[in-house]
Amino acid sequence: GDVQQGKQKAALCFSCHGEQGRAILPQYPNLSGQSAKYLSIALKGYKNGTRLDPVMAPMAKILSEDDIANISAYFATFQ
Amino acid sequence: GDVQQGKQKAALCFSCHGEQGRAILPQYPNLSGQSAKYLSIALKGYKNGTRLDPVMAPMAKILSEDDIANISAYFATFQ
Repeated sequence: GDVQQGKQKAALCFSCHGEQGRAILPQYPNLSGQSAKYLSIALKGYKNGTRLDPVMAPMAKILSEDDIANISAYFATFQ
Repeated sequence: GDVQQGKQKAALCFSCHGEQGRAILPQYPNLSGQSAKYLSIALKGYKNGTRLDPVMAPMAKILSEDDIANISAYFATFQ
């Protein structure tokens, strides 16, 4: 994925997951320290409904496959 | 949760998530770098079926609430 484009698109994630993937509250997962592959699996799950979350589902539904790859690449830069 | 007891109980997690929470394959999440709270939310979700995964559901179903707290405390020691 493209990290620069991912950072733009990920703006909607920052309010809960933090700009560097460190969640603002302990009940939200940190996205830092995860692989781009796992992050995209999770986002695709929310998008296709195999992974359930009332907050994440509507967020993921507006993302394209490229958005998902770019956002995942962006957060995976924080290990 | 009790980290020592958590480490014993977490033995069944190590084959995929690693003994220190670094997943052996990129499609599995790292458990290191997550809060104990988030880890227990995820495990409880697998246990009560609000979080779906064919591998994790049977694993989580055999865990007690204490097991979940202890395992979560153990992996949360790796940041």
